[in-house]
Amino acid sequence: MTRVTVWNEYRQERESAEIAAVYPQGIHGAIADGLRDAGFDARTATLDEPEHGLTDDVLAATDVLTWWGHAAHDQVDDAIVERVRRRVLDGMGLIVLHSGHHSKLFRALMGTSGDLKWREAGERERIWVVDPSHPIADGLGESFALEQEEMYGEPFDVPAPDRLVLVSWFQGGEVFRSGCCFLRGRGRIFYFRPGHETHPTYFQPMVRRVIANAVRWAAQPRGDRPTFGNQQPLEPLGGG
Amino acid sequence: MTRVTVWNEYRQERESAEIAAVYPQGIHGAIADGLRDAGFDARTATLDEPEHGLTDDVLAATDVLTWWGHAAHDQVDDAIVERVRRRVLDGMGLIVLHSGHHSKLFRALMGTSGDLKWREAGERERIWVVDPSHPIADGLGESFALEQEEMYGEPFDVPAPDRLVLVSWFQGGEVFRSGCCFLRGRGRIFYFRPGHETHPTYFQPMVRRVIANAVRWAAQPRGDRPTFGNQQPLEPLGGG
Amino acid sequence: MTRVTVWNEYRQERESAEIAAVYPQGIHGAIADGLRDAGFDARTATLDEPEHGLTDDVLAATDVLTWWGHAAHDQVDDAIVERVRRRVLDGMGLIVLHSGHHSKLFRALMGTSGDLKWREAGERERIWVVDPSHPIADGLGESFALEQEEMYGEPFDVPAPDRLVLVSWFQGGEVFRSGCCFLRGRGRIFYFRPGHETHPTYFQPMVRRVIANAVRWAAQPRGDRPTFGNQQPLEPLGGG
Amino acid sequence: MTRVTVWNEYRQERESAEIAAVYPQGIHGAIADGLRDAGFDARTATLDEPEHGLTDDVLAATDVLTWWGHAAHDQVDDAIVERVRRRVLDGMGLIVLHSGHHSKLFRALMGTSGDLKWREAGERERIWVVDPSHPIADGLGESFALEQEEMYGEPFDVPAPDRLVLVSWFQGGEVFRSGCCFLRGRGRIFYFRPGHETHPTYFQPMVRRVIANAVRWAAQPRGDRPTFGNQQPLEPLGGG
Repeated sequence: MTRVTVWNEYRQERESAEIAAVYPQGIHGAIADGLRDAGFDARTATLDEPEHGLTDDVLAATDVLTWWGHAAHDQVDDAIVERVRRRVLDGMGLIVLHSGHHSKLFRALMGTSGDLKWREAGERERIWVVDPSHPIADGLGESFALEQEEMYGEPFDVPAPDRLVLVSWFQGGEVFRSGCCFLRGRGRIFYFRPGHETHPTYFQPMVRRVIANAVRWAAQPRGDRPTFGNQQPLEPLGGG
Repeated sequence: MTRVTVWNEYRQERESAEIAAVYPQGIHGAIADGLRDAGFDARTATLDEPEHGLTDDVLAATDVLTWWGHAAHDQVDDAIVERVRRRVLDGMGLIVLHSGHHSKLFRALMGTSGDLKWREAGERERIWVVDPSHPIADGLGESFALEQEEMYGEPFDVPAPDRLVLVSWFQGGEVFRSGCCFLRGRGRIFYFRPGHETHPTYFQPMVRRVIANAVRWAAQPRGDRPTFGNQQPLEPLGGG
Repeated sequence: MTRVTVWNEYRQERESAEIAAVYPQGIHGAIADGLRDAGFDARTATLDEPEHGLTDDVLAATDVLTWWGHAAHDQVDDAIVERVRRRVLDGMGLIVLHSGHHSKLFRALMGTSGDLKWREAGERERIWVVDPSHPIADGLGESFALEQEEMYGEPFDVPAPDRLVLVSWFQGGEVFRSGCCFLRGRGRIFYFRPGHETHPTYFQPMVRRVIANAVRWAAQPRGDRPTFGNQQPLEPLGGG
Repeated sequence: MTRVTVWNEYRQERESAEIAAVYPQGIHGAIADGLRDAGFDARTATLDEPEHGLTDDVLAATDVLTWWGHAAHDQVDDAIVERVRRRVLDGMGLIVLHSGHHSKLFRALMGTSGDLKWREAGERERIWVVDPSHPIADGLGESFALEQEEMYGEPFDVPAPDRLVLVSWFQGGEVFRSGCCFLRGRGRIFYFRPGHETHPTYFQPMVRRVIANAVRWAAQPRGDRPTFGNQQPLEPLGGG
């Protein structure tokens, strides 16, 4: 059974009654519930736990990590970011959600700023499948709508995704590459846009389906670790 | 000076008073005027000319070809499609416009159906730059709007573009990858979405700028023709 | 159980005693045996069967098609090429082998010439995994050698692959992108270089492993067929 | 005139008589001479200068930076790495040479380890053009050889390049993606493999041509800086 660790900053839910009303068990609670319903072994970890809940043991027992952070990106310890980054490059899947675009972890893996446009106006978002044969698109139909979401707009400062699966339309006139696959080292990374803390997005069935599909995709087995460093020749060098 | 041949089906402008009123010199006339204003040596060719105006001599003297067709794709001669396709692979640039997504030429170069969704409702389109550092984005700003256009919606059945520059938002709720670069053989190909025959799109300054930028990009010099076929070894085979 | 149709031109094995000695059951026989050993339901079809063995019924019952052709590409009927091409775009996997780079089918799906360099000198080829996390690389180790093969050299006139998995080294000094994934429509296509008719390449265990991995990859389930054509708006157009 | 800053670690040339004999003016001296011959305004900067010679003023006056480092990657100050990285994302071109694959700068921009195989055996390398229409391939012919070089072998732990231009063959049996284009933010990055300190590689005419072509490519103008952050809606939100 695929083992997922659902990481959440978990600050705003404790500080804001409005957000707590939307996510009484925290954003991580809602995401983990959705993953359990989809048949995954989902655990949670949060910023204020020791080592942010991301010890070597936890990471070693994690096939796919999901990441939600927003207001406290700078309080994530650099050494733990580096630990997680190395684990991704070694093959752990990673699903970066919404405002995680500005997390240290995502920026370290992308090499770019992760910058984008945004607007908190509770407007309608339509998410379109542009690559219907990708496994993350399975069962989504052609598009689905979220009645109220924060807007994110282009340009999105990331490398060109290795595969672009979803593109969003916003009521206010913007578009956004909302579902992007990146391959880094032996790791599969999926960025998925929706999930503002004031909207019940992570209870929405299609959003849950995307996350479950993405976890399944990111957890696929991969080959052996490659060998690096000094090598003996395979062919004779003498002849030259 | 870059030599552009502006190809147009040029049927609807002669058959419909409504369309003739929008494009009295034909769609090709409007596009060629825009290119001349941008400093290009632009000529035109149309379906009903001998060899569709695309003789070997014309193609040999063309650095970039632009292509607009809609109602008569099936009347383009297969041998001429193949002639143009080979010239593209040999290095002639190609700008495929709007309903050219279903032309024999574009489908032959892509290998896919070119299918998409559409709606003729004269709705607003906003075209967003998602790759601001691409030369085709030069001077466009972040987005521009066309007040009335036909809608094209995803999925767009083409190979993943080698570079995605523009994405459209439509009033009716759809998105579309509107500016796509494809590299094929020695040829540079750009698909650009707007341009329904009942709207004065090819007089719009930003549309003209995109086309001029695309011609400039597609005309860039490239290396020598590669050598194919039987080869002598460069290294001794005996040693094995 | 994944259903594979192994297609072969099957002319040279009947015309040349030398080739018949290498492939007494035909190249298709060797490939199909390897796939059966890997647990697939493999059938064969050849050029001189009615409809080249590729009737609508056969294609409808095929999850993945493998294709080997060399001397008689031009004798494959255009209508059947188009039938197979459409089936690939609709989701059938396709594994194109060796000299199939010049088949009508592969060229129609790529849009390019498929040209390359070649040399029949029975030299050593080393095939390197450049994308170790791709499922087609599973179990291959870092590289493997074929003691005698035809050389293919760059440039290989195909679109940039959606994913490059294998690169070959040749004793005579050339390199070649030997394992290339292409996504077209709903179809997954893998081009795999080795397999000259005078060498027992399709009995080699690592070659068989690549083909089996590729079949497994190309047969993965994919989403529903997308809808194309005329659409009603999802959002009100009036406001404009 | 394009302004190039040629950065070099410049330690080994001062510590080893053998290396000093190959590069009496330092590796940077050889590279800068080649660029001046090609018509560029080339200056140099080295590790042991204040701020490694990479002050804000120097970077602001640099269109393209070339980077050679090997034994002292860890002595490059993190703050300066970050300064250079931001300048690349803002549009300065970057050419990373040879052992620069392990530099802090390159790894920070790629997000991966940059690991690879290597062997110091002075063997022959053949560099093949796999994308002949790319401007960096201009004038290279189909391949060129370096009689003595260090070997680098796959897998090369970088993201899939946005465009792959060159692939190397090595006498000892390995292959390597030797010329890789990456687009990051507004910056163009080219990784070019050859250049071990004990071989006179940077005096070789074809190597100089690649570097000059790459500088020209990386210096191309690009669009305006995009706007990020909070935005007003472009379309009315009321209607919903």
